[in-house]
Amino acid sequence: MSGTLLYAQSGGVTAVINATASAVITEARARKVKVLAARNGILGALREELIDTSKESAAAIRALAHTPGGAFGSCRVKLKSLEADRAKYERLLAVFKAHDVRWFLYNGGNDSADTALKVSKLAAEFDYPLTCIGVPKTVDNDLAVTDCCPGFGSAAKYTAVSVRECALDVAAMAETSTKVFVYEAMGRHAGWLAAAGGLAGKTVDDAPHLILFPERPYDEADFIAQVKKIVARVGYCVVVASEGIRTADGKFVADAGGGKDSFGHTQLGGVASFLAGRVKDQLGMKVHWTLPDYLQRSARHLASKTDLDQALAVGKAAVQYALKGMNATMPVIKRTSDSPYRWKIEPAALEKVANHEKTMPANFIRKDGYGITASARKYLEPLIRGESPPPYGRDGIPNYVALKNVAVKQKLSVWRG
Amino acid sequence: MSGTLLYAQSGGVTAVINATASAVITEARARKVKVLAARNGILGALREELIDTSKESAAAIRALAHTPGGAFGSCRVKLKSLEADRAKYERLLAVFKAHDVRWFLYNGGNDSADTALKVSKLAAEFDYPLTCIGVPKTVDNDLAVTDCCPGFGSAAKYTAVSVRECALDVAAMAETSTKVFVYEAMGRHAGWLAAAGGLAGKTVDDAPHLILFPERPYDEADFIAQVKKIVARVGYCVVVASEGIRTADGKFVADAGGGKDSFGHTQLGGVASFLAGRVKDQLGMKVHWTLPDYLQRSARHLASKTDLDQALAVGKAAVQYALKGMNATMPVIKRTSDSPYRWKIEPAALEKVANHEKTMPANFIRKDGYGITASARKYLEPLIRGESPPPYGRDGIPNYVALKNVAVKQKLSVWRG
Repeated sequence: MSGTLLYAQSGGVTAVINATASAVITEARARKVKVLAARNGILGALREELIDTSKESAAAIRALAHTPGGAFGSCRVKLKSLEADRAKYERLLAVFKAHDVRWFLYNGGNDSADTALKVSKLAAEFDYPLTCIGVPKTVDNDLAVTDCCPGFGSAAKYTAVSVRECALDVAAMAETSTKVFVYEAMGRHAGWLAAAGGLAGKTVDDAPHLILFPERPYDEADFIAQVKKIVARVGYCVVVASEGIRTADGKFVADAGGGKDSFGHTQLGGVASFLAGRVKDQLGMKVHWTLPDYLQRSARHLASKTDLDQALAVGKAAVQYALKGMNATMPVIKRTSDSPYRWKIEPAALEKVANHEKTMPANFIRKDGYGITASARKYLEPLIRGESPPPYGRDGIPNYVALKNVAVKQKLSVWRG
Repeated sequence: MSGTLLYAQSGGVTAVINATASAVITEARARKVKVLAARNGILGALREELIDTSKESAAAIRALAHTPGGAFGSCRVKLKSLEADRAKYERLLAVFKAHDVRWFLYNGGNDSADTALKVSKLAAEFDYPLTCIGVPKTVDNDLAVTDCCPGFGSAAKYTAVSVRECALDVAAMAETSTKVFVYEAMGRHAGWLAAAGGLAGKTVDDAPHLILFPERPYDEADFIAQVKKIVARVGYCVVVASEGIRTADGKFVADAGGGKDSFGHTQLGGVASFLAGRVKDQLGMKVHWTLPDYLQRSARHLASKTDLDQALAVGKAAVQYALKGMNATMPVIKRTSDSPYRWKIEPAALEKVANHEKTMPANFIRKDGYGITASARKYLEPLIRGESPPPYGRDGIPNYVALKNVAVKQKLSVWRG
């Protein structure tokens, strides 16, 4: 087909966003469509820093499907309204025209869906034939319409497996050493990943014994009382805390830790460190904590097969939708059955995705506020099911690919946005 | 054979200490020897809290080989000298006699080797026929005589793979987000695990760009200058810091973070959090950090095959040595060839292991103090080679086994030590 497809990654990367990229390129190649990728997301499109993916071997594109991170670079840049950022949108269109871009695939979250939608509107205004497709991605699982987001399932699996493993460690040591362990999960606004930690156990005495959700106010006295009770009953207590928990007055608990030390140095806190300190002060128990941070969203070695399959499927469908001219849509995941778990890809209007946020259903949180319900398990469990480990090298490390990322010759003047 | 074999776990558990336990029980069963396990390590032996492993199915004992944590419980209890703790040693001997324990296998580090040695001396003094065997285990890799310690290879693999993965994440985001990432590795006294992080990259521009070893004094001005230089050259900087780094005056850097906040709450710091704060203050760059803590020593899902094989081998050899009456010995790993990597198990005198500490060779650290040498790679790489993932369930989580841990009827009066 004549014309170029431009693919860009946006926002925080995941263990499987490159799988989506791999599927996009593979499907486009099969249809003889040229694929350029923007370096560092929308910034590369603005700067005309484009990568010629045809320079990559078929083996490299296959390996992309098992490589975490963002192979072309991503960015945290949100374009404002068409009015406020008109110069930027027009620049994008100029770059698209210069490289005969007829299909734009933007792989990200809410903001990216919004940007893709706005670009499509501007193109229509200028009568430039362009099909814009949003491709879903986020470990936060907060995209509207889609049943789940590629990237979430793998981070969720990482969380559940890690909580299970460290709980076995704590259980073995609790008699004379660590009695309380706090695991900090990503999720500033919604407790999806913290909830996934709940999959590590089945009964009320299994770890995690307490989950702290951003959907419920953090009540310190009650939390400490719960920890005390659980240690008395079980012998130890494993806590999964969402980074986004807040006190009843709306203040982030993470901000309560941190601040400055006596030398005026910045103290970078975090929820787990703060909670561990409170347990130590109030109960005098030995406590350990973990902040997995980026490890939880880059752990391709522990990816969920379900998640990987969905990341590949949205990439393939995105190309198909693009070539069919299904402008301003996003391929989303529709769950057709819980048991057995079945899903399919279908198109959704970007209008319905952009700038909406999916919150966690209230009935996913146990009445006491410290655990997940059967409904949550029914939803979450299929998403972490299955394994698809990367191939490992003789050096004991996964064979992750580094692309050549050959730049396309620039045609426009330098952008000074 | 007549008589009982008593097995106990000691100190911090690992991803593969249960593999050693599995091999001990399997080998003993093959030789018709009854195996009891002490609940929570030496404490269980003192309290006469013994577990009858014959109540566990063959399938459970096989599953033990892929289950992290310490299946019978471990403890952090160090017995003092025979003089100072004579009552405890005599109690141990009384428990051993009551249960016809003729072979005592103590699975731990330096301290455990020392305890096993002392128990053997007391038994000799009392003419009680007992064979004491130390079985090596520690993620710290600081045991003398043995080439490496079961448990270390898996933690090392976790470190190398995790650093590789999060570095791909940071590389993708650095243009507009996190530019510096700090990974905190275990190792209070020696930089073995921090060094293993070095396996994540091959060239000077690969992550990790800087490794901070406890063997070298932490020089803040130089560290910050290095970070600045690397970000300018590479675009981002990944740091692996050992928890045990100290300033030139011998103070632990980890203790510089932490303290009390303005509310008088304990601030639990850590090295990574502290270093991240310094980078933020001095360079104004966005920084993230991770503290994997117990995740790094319980990640059986990412165990090294070499490490697993060695954990099984020392368990099997320990039973063989015990039944041959090779008192006061430890099965250790002898490396017979680097390339191809070959190793065998041989006996070492507990005298040579107890209370010695193996430090990291000086030639493992690069001259500038911030990386590993070819010698370090030659030593470390085989230890993280190979994968042996656990079986996963339909729930997406490894099928880790929980033993029944049936208690043996007590024969002595309650111990009030």
